[in-house]
Amino acid sequence: MEPYRIIGAKDTSTRTIVTLSAQRILDQCEALARLSELDGGLTRVFLSREQQAANALVLGWMREAGMGARLDAIGNVVGRYEGDRPGLPCLMMGSHLDTVRDAGKYDGMLGVVTAIECVRALHARGKRLPFALEVVGFADEEGTRFNATLLGSRAVAGTFKGEVLDNVDKDGIPMREALRAFGLDPGRIGAAARRREDVLAYAELHIEQGPVLEAEGLPVGVVTAINGATRFAVEVGGMAGHAGTVPMRLRQDALAAAAECVLAIERRCAAEPELVGTVGKLECLPGAVNVVPGKVRFTIDIRAPRDPMRLAAVDDVLGEMRAIAARRGVQLNVTKTHEGGVAACAPWLMDQIGAAVAAEGIAVRELPSGAGHDGMAIIDLADIGMLFVRCEKGISHNPAEAITLADVETAARVWLRFIEQFDPSRKP
Amino acid sequence: MEPYRIIGAKDTSTRTIVTLSAQRILDQCEALARLSELDGGLTRVFLSREQQAANALVLGWMREAGMGARLDAIGNVVGRYEGDRPGLPCLMMGSHLDTVRDAGKYDGMLGVVTAIECVRALHARGKRLPFALEVVGFADEEGTRFNATLLGSRAVAGTFKGEVLDNVDKDGIPMREALRAFGLDPGRIGAAARRREDVLAYAELHIEQGPVLEAEGLPVGVVTAINGATRFAVEVGGMAGHAGTVPMRLRQDALAAAAECVLAIERRCAAEPELVGTVGKLECLPGAVNVVPGKVRFTIDIRAPRDPMRLAAVDDVLGEMRAIAARRGVQLNVTKTHEGGVAACAPWLMDQIGAAVAAEGIAVRELPSGAGHDGMAIIDLADIGMLFVRCEKGISHNPAEAITLADVETAARVWLRFIEQFDPSRKP
Repeated sequence: MEPYRIIGAKDTSTRTIVTLSAQRILDQCEALARLSELDGGLTRVFLSREQQAANALVLGWMREAGMGARLDAIGNVVGRYEGDRPGLPCLMMGSHLDTVRDAGKYDGMLGVVTAIECVRALHARGKRLPFALEVVGFADEEGTRFNATLLGSRAVAGTFKGEVLDNVDKDGIPMREALRAFGLDPGRIGAAARRREDVLAYAELHIEQGPVLEAEGLPVGVVTAINGATRFAVEVGGMAGHAGTVPMRLRQDALAAAAECVLAIERRCAAEPELVGTVGKLECLPGAVNVVPGKVRFTIDIRAPRDPMRLAAVDDVLGEMRAIAARRGVQLNVTKTHEGGVAACAPWLMDQIGAAVAAEGIAVRELPSGAGHDGMAIIDLADIGMLFVRCEKGISHNPAEAITLADVETAARVWLRFIEQFDPSRKP
Repeated sequence: MEPYRIIGAKDTSTRTIVTLSAQRILDQCEALARLSELDGGLTRVFLSREQQAANALVLGWMREAGMGARLDAIGNVVGRYEGDRPGLPCLMMGSHLDTVRDAGKYDGMLGVVTAIECVRALHARGKRLPFALEVVGFADEEGTRFNATLLGSRAVAGTFKGEVLDNVDKDGIPMREALRAFGLDPGRIGAAARRREDVLAYAELHIEQGPVLEAEGLPVGVVTAINGATRFAVEVGGMAGHAGTVPMRLRQDALAAAAECVLAIERRCAAEPELVGTVGKLECLPGAVNVVPGKVRFTIDIRAPRDPMRLAAVDDVLGEMRAIAARRGVQLNVTKTHEGGVAACAPWLMDQIGAAVAAEGIAVRELPSGAGHDGMAIIDLADIGMLFVRCEKGISHNPAEAITLADVETAARVWLRFIEQFDPSRKP
């Protein structure tokens, strides 16, 4: 047994004793980070052996914390802590247990583990609430393996699309087969869907993954909305040729054309502070030192906290790319791979999360989320709210992702307070 | 037996009958193109099963053409047609039998097969010259497999560097082991080296791989020099981050920095008509749609027909790249992977090749070679000369590489004339 640090605090408004261990939260993030397919780093994808192991660990923690716990039909871990009496509708909390490649240790996992820690504290005091609590560890949010995101939360929201079962991973394995190999039935994913009347609200705690809270010296912040995003897959078709013999003026260099596109995207998206645009993946073919590139494939990801801002940027970028292609005589093939509008957090949940922040003596900072989250899917099932936790330099999707013990303590105290004082009757 | 078309022409100056089959030359290129590791395309690399098969085919053709033929210590195919009496020094001809990935059918092979066809024509007439003829099919010029070029011709020139024996291919197999598996002894490569007194000159026929002859309506041209080349491997180190949360102004995007470098190289090298610069290979890491690129690796290849022109461009490009990296706050790591000065063709050989061109009634166009060739290595053993053959749109290192039967006929007639009238006494 590790000697967990116990935080005791007298809460004058409710006269209950808070008992939370920030150290256990960090230790559990470390334990999950060791379940990785990447040596010396963290990569854990949907339906992998590593997910199998992570699920087993989280199910165990949920049960230790006093919850009933089970896997659902898509491989999400679901823990339930009954309220005053069995079968009450729940406040659903959660985040995801999968990661990007070479990921940080907190993106997703922190929200799952902190919610379990809060339930553990209630259970230790024998405290029951007038509603049930559920904690979900979503099996896929990042979409790392099958090029389709939010698979776990979409299944819970009842919006999982059957056609993605045919998506294949980099080894050509279809999702359908991977589900079977994991012990799940691809025909029964619908069983993971929850009924609206059983879920009062969805609340998620997550690291900010951006630099705003750090810049303002605040440990936590209340999320207003999850930014909308548009993604494209682009293929530029030029003419491969010999690097020594084709004069510059006769080239149709697919990479030079793509490089102009990359810079056009960067320039347009830098023009407004809240807008971001990224070319994250780029492949150059045939890819030899002495061959002029004949084909380049790349991705575009554009996000903004307001839909018109995003859509205007997308239009401009596509127009600029068409002009670049026409001027250089290369083919341009653009496929939209994702489009999601802004997912707004519910004001009544923002108010209650904000009240818990204020009660800890922290200024209430509201901010949008640049990253996507499971709430984007769960919003089809229930109102959503989110609490952000400061992370070092805003770094995420990177092994350098870091948070402090003090911030985890603060965040857990805010979260437990929010849970205990949650009032579903304030839903409009 | 295929019905080869016989070209008969009365040569008034020498009163011999020329007997060459352009169709056989093309058929033999087709036969070699079928020996490929790439389904539906052509890839044949050093020490592969496909090289084994190509060597067997070429050895057979050499023997049919009246030559003694053997494999040398590095796997080059060497055919010898004795002169007036055995053991005379030779006019060495040749080109390479290996290919780039997804290659054309003529780059290299055309020169080997045409030289054999010329010997066949002499042999059919029982004609012997006052010097021997040798035809070499070099085992590696492109360097596709082991990231080191001109291995076959360097062995013949006696400049093969033992340290490349430790180079590994993409499967981690060292060249040393691949040589053994091929039936060769890595300790005996020195035996492939030829003595200067045994080689009067080296002459190579090759497709132009560029658009100059086509633009000027000429079937063949006389090469003045093989352009010098400098190559670099570049690594740009930025900061990976979340594509949705890191504001544009706080990014150190390795791909955006690399894109600026690509365009700077293109712009500088387009400033002088004879200069070329290529980024042929680019890898973007970690390479996910939702992650700001943290690292990019790319190659640079800069070539020019005059060394000072190339060196000035290299200086400018490196300076611009340093400025881009400094402005963007990214790390830049540049490694020179190749530097080779201009390899000039010998005027006395250019004169004799040009005389053969003129005797066929074709304007003598002299032009530099943008591509590298085995002559760059053989120049350490003997003076070099080259004849270029027009190819469609100048396309090469591409399956679309194409030549016409008429041009092959013309080139073969020029080449046979050059061989018959070759006068080693004109060497200064």
